[in-house]
Amino acid sequence: MATSHITINDVTLMNTGGPPGTTIPEDSAKAMNLKRRDFIGLKDFSKTELEALLDLAAAMKAGQNTEKYLQDKLLGMLFTVASTRTRISFQVGAQHLGGHAEHYNAADLQLSNRETLKDTAAVMSRFLDAIIVRMYDMSSYGQGRDGLNTIAEHADVPVINALDDKEHPCQVMADILTLKEKFGPDYKQKRVVMSWGYSPRQKSLGVLHSMLVSGSMLGMNLIFAHPKGYDLDEEYLSFARSQLKESGGTLEFTNDLMEAAEGADVIYMKSWKSLTLPKEREEIFKNEIRADWCVSEEHFQRANPGAYYMDCMPFVRGEQVTAGVADGHNSIIYDQAENRLHAQKSIMAAII
Amino acid sequence: MATSHITINDVTLMNTGGPPGTTIPEDSAKAMNLKRRDFIGLKDFSKTELEALLDLAAAMKAGQNTEKYLQDKLLGMLFTVASTRTRISFQVGAQHLGGHAEHYNAADLQLSNRETLKDTAAVMSRFLDAIIVRMYDMSSYGQGRDGLNTIAEHADVPVINALDDKEHPCQVMADILTLKEKFGPDYKQKRVVMSWGYSPRQKSLGVLHSMLVSGSMLGMNLIFAHPKGYDLDEEYLSFARSQLKESGGTLEFTNDLMEAAEGADVIYMKSWKSLTLPKEREEIFKNEIRADWCVSEEHFQRANPGAYYMDCMPFVRGEQVTAGVADGHNSIIYDQAENRLHAQKSIMAAII
Amino acid sequence: MATSHITINDVTLMNTGGPPGTTIPEDSAKAMNLKRRDFIGLKDFSKTELEALLDLAAAMKAGQNTEKYLQDKLLGMLFTVASTRTRISFQVGAQHLGGHAEHYNAADLQLSNRETLKDTAAVMSRFLDAIIVRMYDMSSYGQGRDGLNTIAEHADVPVINALDDKEHPCQVMADILTLKEKFGPDYKQKRVVMSWGYSPRQKSLGVLHSMLVSGSMLGMNLIFAHPKGYDLDEEYLSFARSQLKESGGTLEFTNDLMEAAEGADVIYMKSWKSLTLPKEREEIFKNEIRADWCVSEEHFQRANPGAYYMDCMPFVRGEQVTAGVADGHNSIIYDQAENRLHAQKSIMAAII
Repeated sequence: MATSHITINDVTLMNTGGPPGTTIPEDSAKAMNLKRRDFIGLKDFSKTELEALLDLAAAMKAGQNTEKYLQDKLLGMLFTVASTRTRISFQVGAQHLGGHAEHYNAADLQLSNRETLKDTAAVMSRFLDAIIVRMYDMSSYGQGRDGLNTIAEHADVPVINALDDKEHPCQVMADILTLKEKFGPDYKQKRVVMSWGYSPRQKSLGVLHSMLVSGSMLGMNLIFAHPKGYDLDEEYLSFARSQLKESGGTLEFTNDLMEAAEGADVIYMKSWKSLTLPKEREEIFKNEIRADWCVSEEHFQRANPGAYYMDCMPFVRGEQVTAGVADGHNSIIYDQAENRLHAQKSIMAAII
Repeated sequence: MATSHITINDVTLMNTGGPPGTTIPEDSAKAMNLKRRDFIGLKDFSKTELEALLDLAAAMKAGQNTEKYLQDKLLGMLFTVASTRTRISFQVGAQHLGGHAEHYNAADLQLSNRETLKDTAAVMSRFLDAIIVRMYDMSSYGQGRDGLNTIAEHADVPVINALDDKEHPCQVMADILTLKEKFGPDYKQKRVVMSWGYSPRQKSLGVLHSMLVSGSMLGMNLIFAHPKGYDLDEEYLSFARSQLKESGGTLEFTNDLMEAAEGADVIYMKSWKSLTLPKEREEIFKNEIRADWCVSEEHFQRANPGAYYMDCMPFVRGEQVTAGVADGHNSIIYDQAENRLHAQKSIMAAII
Repeated sequence: MATSHITINDVTLMNTGGPPGTTIPEDSAKAMNLKRRDFIGLKDFSKTELEALLDLAAAMKAGQNTEKYLQDKLLGMLFTVASTRTRISFQVGAQHLGGHAEHYNAADLQLSNRETLKDTAAVMSRFLDAIIVRMYDMSSYGQGRDGLNTIAEHADVPVINALDDKEHPCQVMADILTLKEKFGPDYKQKRVVMSWGYSPRQKSLGVLHSMLVSGSMLGMNLIFAHPKGYDLDEEYLSFARSQLKESGGTLEFTNDLMEAAEGADVIYMKSWKSLTLPKEREEIFKNEIRADWCVSEEHFQRANPGAYYMDCMPFVRGEQVTAGVADGHNSIIYDQAENRLHAQKSIMAAII
């Protein structure tokens, strides 16, 4: 459904079902009525809503909330690109909640015969209770989001962004859930470095933008480290700046990963495509600098003791990160992956 | 299962479960014992059976019949070509009825390693409660139906035709359900134009033949409009002619869409491949005439007030129909698509 | 999970639920505690365990055991190659047991973007209750098994081998279940010929090795007939020899199928790749000899009266076997295929 039609009420629709003493703040639960909203971009949500979703995810993970929010609900997953974590966690999560999510490879649909996204969305929403979409082509930044918006406009059911070119909101909800688990309520004070890394592929900026948006709203302490030419989209940068005063968060940017690693509590590695360098130029450039942007033990020597390595995966050892770091005792990448399940169960429960 | 082994009883197997006053005529329900029959071609069914299926579909859509006809039943969907509506509606419908339908891309099966349809069908029917098949290659008309017949012959479970080269019975059951909804019992008197339209692809004649068969049995008033060289298969034409006297239906054929549109209550657009023109000749010819066969506002000016635009989808705006018509207030294409679900639930409930 | 961490207890975990007089021997059921073990290679199981699994499969097939062993369990099927019987029977079986198995085409996963099997397995096991894997590339014998071992090492949940280059344990469990059904407890005395046959494809040795391992443990009477150059892997041959004394089984090898057919009770046809001939050499050689290795009526004239034809399928009539034999009254290939379901339900019930 189109986000433009959405009204946010301050009525509780969900009974979190936790025992007395559950960690879900009364007021954030109260503020969350997300029923029938799309979950495409995090700018459309408030700090209170994001925190309520995180609390519900934590309650689900802890087994405090086992309600079958999706009883008899049927979800469709329209994916144009490969997926491991997202696909499996959505399907497993839907099943946990009493529903079923079916994966459609776009090549198996009439989209491959020039059917429009509009018609696909309108038809799907006659059959399904929600549509989960992964769609992007980094050779044309913005096209994926346009596609999601088209789907949302013509679907009468909630649409969930399972990664487009601009955001990866489900990943970042899982990431913040992971930070809260590891650091407790102090996670906002921790120094979280989001670093660019080399990949031969042209990858989405989704994780970066979603972290920028949610971190700035929640009041986190974020450092983005990337080479020149890899600036984030001004649409998200300006939104983030506008949030800092109220949230108390901080944002830093640097072109030096070694410098960023100083005093870091988290180093989170993610490759992304340059929005400004021409493709051929970027190919050459990123190969020249890749050695400086591979997270290694050296970076963790400069980081705070016990600092964590995060990665939304997939990654290639030796390209973005050394095997020693990725497989070391500081690495929490599989915990991060597992939290996809819990975060997405919360999101599905809230909006569908 | 092979249709040759089928006996039609006049015993009611299904309790339609509707409240007193339900719209299902006692006698049509009584006449319908379709258990374990294949649903491949509509010529194998009687008028009474088709009407009973439509009544059950309507009762299901209205929520008057919510019986779990497929409790614990497992269905397999063997698809060699792309599908959006058919795939999703069968999977959702099976789930609504308490069962589960799994989609198999033929490329993932040993069919891709030269296993025969015979062996595939015999094996599938050892595991599954029904097999839903979409299979055709329009470069060899008739081959798809041969394949379905082979599957039916070697399977011990019902086989459902989810589109072959000759028929699309599930689509047409949904179409007639839609006509009944829009016009009430008078739908048979309405002037329904089935029109050819341009497509660069070579499309199946399934919808046309299934409408020809069922419309002539039910007593509908059908006008087929198509260019010269696009005559339907004589197998279906002669069957249809044989039905008219008893049913009171009418059939007209014209090579002029503008003429057909005069006084139409429905214009239904469908592209199909010529059975007689050689491929290269057809490529040239259909490009020459395409402008005359694109349904536009002009056609609806000649049609009756409130006439509907129907399309089984997918279609490309500007090729078979103008965007104005396809997206206009006369267009009922999404209602048609939705009715795939209800019609197929009825079919699955009846035969499995 | 890695098999190295497994302890075999002599405690019964499964209540087979059969009526008094059920055929499951008390002691074999007692000896079977396979919970959380991988099912990759049959050498890792004892004769008693294999027999208990077969007994449970038979009880399930007979409807004596209908327990929902997989209630709410979610299984993932990671397949890199085509499958008909294996895929469908695992999915249907999981559903029968109250669970759900989702099929992942490896091309749809991030494996296609160079994600490692290690990461894939670690992530999957955070979401799923078991992982079913079909993975091999016969141009590199052993690579498939290495892949399965990697997955098992990094997954915390049981891993099931759904065919690799070295073994096909689920197929062979179904085969022995079939032999027991057809011959009763005397099946071990029957002369079972496992024959090589021609195929243009390079096929796995899995069925041969799994039969070699289990037949030698169970005390069967096996004759392997194959051309020179098609010897089985010494790893399995030496294991098999070590079992014969205790089990009382016999193993014969011959390079003449006509000779092997003399007095046979079963002729089981399976093509496999030579482990020693270079590819180009094998291509020429196997075409030269193929006529001698196509099972025909002539072989069955030499076999015992009522001898059965078995085939794990798929096969091509006229290449490995004549149509007369494959489709004749001695052929039990579809019964064999059906038993995949029952054997795998037993395996899933036991280990998950």
